[in-house]
Amino acid sequence: MSTDTRIHEISKLDLKEPVLVQGLPGLGYVGKVAVDYFIQKLKPQKFAELYSSYLLFPDGNLGITISEDGTYSLPKYEFYAFNESLPHAIFLTGDAQPSVTGQYEVASRVLDFAQQFGCKMVYTMGGYGTRSGNDVGAVYGVVGDAMTAERLKKLGAKMTKGGAVTGAAGVILGIGRQRGLQCAGLLGATTGAYPDIEAARAVIHMLTGLTSMPVELKDLDAEIEDMRKKMERFRRTDLEESKEGEEEKPEESKDRYIT
Amino acid sequence: MSTDTRIHEISKLDLKEPVLVQGLPGLGYVGKVAVDYFIQKLKPQKFAELYSSYLLFPDGNLGITISEDGTYSLPKYEFYAFNESLPHAIFLTGDAQPSVTGQYEVASRVLDFAQQFGCKMVYTMGGYGTRSGNDVGAVYGVVGDAMTAERLKKLGAKMTKGGAVTGAAGVILGIGRQRGLQCAGLLGATTGAYPDIEAARAVIHMLTGLTSMPVELKDLDAEIEDMRKKMERFRRTDLEESKEGEEEKPEESKDRYIT
Amino acid sequence: MSTDTRIHEISKLDLKEPVLVQGLPGLGYVGKVAVDYFIQKLKPQKFAELYSSYLLFPDGNLGITISEDGTYSLPKYEFYAFNESLPHAIFLTGDAQPSVTGQYEVASRVLDFAQQFGCKMVYTMGGYGTRSGNDVGAVYGVVGDAMTAERLKKLGAKMTKGGAVTGAAGVILGIGRQRGLQCAGLLGATTGAYPDIEAARAVIHMLTGLTSMPVELKDLDAEIEDMRKKMERFRRTDLEESKEGEEEKPEESKDRYIT
Amino acid sequence: MSTDTRIHEISKLDLKEPVLVQGLPGLGYVGKVAVDYFIQKLKPQKFAELYSSYLLFPDGNLGITISEDGTYSLPKYEFYAFNESLPHAIFLTGDAQPSVTGQYEVASRVLDFAQQFGCKMVYTMGGYGTRSGNDVGAVYGVVGDAMTAERLKKLGAKMTKGGAVTGAAGVILGIGRQRGLQCAGLLGATTGAYPDIEAARAVIHMLTGLTSMPVELKDLDAEIEDMRKKMERFRRTDLEESKEGEEEKPEESKDRYIT
Repeated sequence: MSTDTRIHEISKLDLKEPVLVQGLPGLGYVGKVAVDYFIQKLKPQKFAELYSSYLLFPDGNLGITISEDGTYSLPKYEFYAFNESLPHAIFLTGDAQPSVTGQYEVASRVLDFAQQFGCKMVYTMGGYGTRSGNDVGAVYGVVGDAMTAERLKKLGAKMTKGGAVTGAAGVILGIGRQRGLQCAGLLGATTGAYPDIEAARAVIHMLTGLTSMPVELKDLDAEIEDMRKKMERFRRTDLEESKEGEEEKPEESKDRYIT
Repeated sequence: MSTDTRIHEISKLDLKEPVLVQGLPGLGYVGKVAVDYFIQKLKPQKFAELYSSYLLFPDGNLGITISEDGTYSLPKYEFYAFNESLPHAIFLTGDAQPSVTGQYEVASRVLDFAQQFGCKMVYTMGGYGTRSGNDVGAVYGVVGDAMTAERLKKLGAKMTKGGAVTGAAGVILGIGRQRGLQCAGLLGATTGAYPDIEAARAVIHMLTGLTSMPVELKDLDAEIEDMRKKMERFRRTDLEESKEGEEEKPEESKDRYIT
Repeated sequence: MSTDTRIHEISKLDLKEPVLVQGLPGLGYVGKVAVDYFIQKLKPQKFAELYSSYLLFPDGNLGITISEDGTYSLPKYEFYAFNESLPHAIFLTGDAQPSVTGQYEVASRVLDFAQQFGCKMVYTMGGYGTRSGNDVGAVYGVVGDAMTAERLKKLGAKMTKGGAVTGAAGVILGIGRQRGLQCAGLLGATTGAYPDIEAARAVIHMLTGLTSMPVELKDLDAEIEDMRKKMERFRRTDLEESKEGEEEKPEESKDRYIT
Repeated sequence: MSTDTRIHEISKLDLKEPVLVQGLPGLGYVGKVAVDYFIQKLKPQKFAELYSSYLLFPDGNLGITISEDGTYSLPKYEFYAFNESLPHAIFLTGDAQPSVTGQYEVASRVLDFAQQFGCKMVYTMGGYGTRSGNDVGAVYGVVGDAMTAERLKKLGAKMTKGGAVTGAAGVILGIGRQRGLQCAGLLGATTGAYPDIEAARAVIHMLTGLTSMPVELKDLDAEIEDMRKKMERFRRTDLEESKEGEEEKPEESKDRYIT
């Protein structure tokens, strides 16, 4: 079923040995929030999409998601290219993770694609489950080589010894290393809050330090404050809606519907 | 496993850029009831069947279903061709949905087949889950392009913003759009009644308006009245049967048997 | 994965348009008991085995089963050839059913193989679930053509109208009919007793009548009496063992062990 | 998906008709503990690894495991070659079992690989579930040919009659025998203790007797004593930790984290 995973290139871009930065939905949404921040700030150009029959909704079903502007799409990965300063980067995000059966195939395709541009370094961002709230803000590093380990330690990362990284974040580190790429997993400690903005902030700081990407971090603090306020408002709105009862606003509704 | 999905053409027909109209079993049986109505009224010719190892019974098993005339078949899709007036149409119905693993493959085959005849427009009919009975009769539109969106709005459809369409109805819209086809999902609001005749009626009205197909809609109202009565009689019969106890009528029985 | 199902031919035999008679483990073990009876009586020659990664234990696991003589095997189908009188026959039995994913592939391979010998008629034997003990002894027929239906009715079969046949018995009827073979399912009504000897007897009677195979049916009655006695003894032994407690006889033990 | 299972050869070695000795995680960890003992004592050279998308974590997920030195890997099999005395041997161990779907493919690849070196004999070690503690120390043999059966009996093995061996240990015996290889399963009776050192010792003794490998068995007794003490200490430490409460030592922590 080799045709079940397909990358659609939107435009041909000039990239020099870009680092690949992956952030997908997962524990605390840490990886996805972090990569979205880089995309928002650096405004890289979307230049490819990946579709796969292995990209399922979190409930194991398949279908289309409809965005707020009324357009729709099957679950997909999106590739964004940043080439305004060095290092060049490919930011990879998406709205789904592959099913277990498809993890190898999808990660292999992603690496094939990045390596076409000379990619030699893979960063994957995600969450590290912890029960202690005190640990939030820490970044755990999973690293394939001693040199990268040293760089992470200097920036304050704790190195992991034992344990496991499941899902797309782990698999791309595994296959990347088999291919001789430098690989690092940056895992923000999270109690699983959804989304865990604090954990994402720590990971964003770490990646910025590692790559010297021109990202404004003072914005980050302001925006995290913003997001926290929005989430609080959101929580209050929720309460009001449940008091108002069954009144409906169909044009704006985001109810899940199923056919 | 490319041979696991196979289309068997029964006869070669002349079709000019037919619209594809899909209605499969799903929420409230809205899509299936609607497409069956068009098939009953327009008497299109059955010209192909699709078989696939991915078409399973709703309980996840595989086998044959036996019809009331004693014939039997594996789960299948059926294609009906209408070419008596413009637009020509291919009506697609069936007695099963593909398993999650097979959704991409089956939808791709269906589109390959329809595109052989020059198909450029895909309509999929289904149900839109709602908790409010007041909403039944509304049709929610999922549309890939602004022009089609305008046409649906003029006919009274509410445009969906957010949410998801799972299953075969969603997947064919997703792949259709990737291929540059015009795509529209017509989803009748339903509380999940089985089958939801009211929701199907709304969808039939909408599609008739969109395509100017020569379908008698006054019949529809009469038939819906008929179906309602039949279902009430059916419900009363059910009650009587359960009072009569274990008496059996094997020749007529429709018990599920399993080997 | 076309190599995942493989038929190993043990010897080349001369068969003229054999009927294929399938009996696999299923409801009440009706099909398997019935085909085993024919194999015991007609002493056909085992001439092929089918292995497949889709043939799993009933619990969904895979491994080897060890027989009482200490030999072992992966789950398999066995083909036995009978060519001493007409019609020639291939008896197909096995110790497992394919998983849902493999039903199409395995049934297709079986038919490919039988058709190499000119097979034009497929009989599948199995159980028909019924709640009424009074119905045991009845045989329900599932038939693809009117002529075979008439023959079954004359022999007292009840024709099924509605319902479904799941599993290998159903799938081979479905694919067989698509290929233009004459197909008949002989389903013995069973309350699910394990194994249901009475239901198997009815099915054996029916198949013997249909094919005029030289099977002694008076033996059947005696053997069914035998089996009933054995099973009663067996049940009494069970009781005694559970009174004796934890004493073990390893050489004879049939405990399931797992590594 | 033939590329989903891949053997990576680290070095080319000269092996003469090596016996293949497989010990994977399973019941009581008997097989894995046993093969690890041979690897520790004989110091064979690691010369190949097998990766497969079918090698999953025991919970059905996929990802990387991180070892105590901070390196990480996808689930894998490891092949070690011993060629200092006859018989030469390939020891196969790993940190995962294939999923049911992949059992055939992975076992076939392993045998392909071993047969390249002329392998004609396969030993698989594992656990045999028993409820009686008295039976621990017994080894149950599953053997494909009478000659090997005799050799096992002389060494005190009990021959199994009936039952099943599920998982990788069973499947390799099944496929091995189909290929005409001599095959023996050595299953140590275990109550499922984790890991069951006593059961592993019995299996190590048996294999040493069968192959005359130069393994010091007096070390085994000492080491088993060692392991027992370690496990007792370990159990006591556990208790202390749970008294100390939530204090954390991140650098040493082996918590499972998930992204």
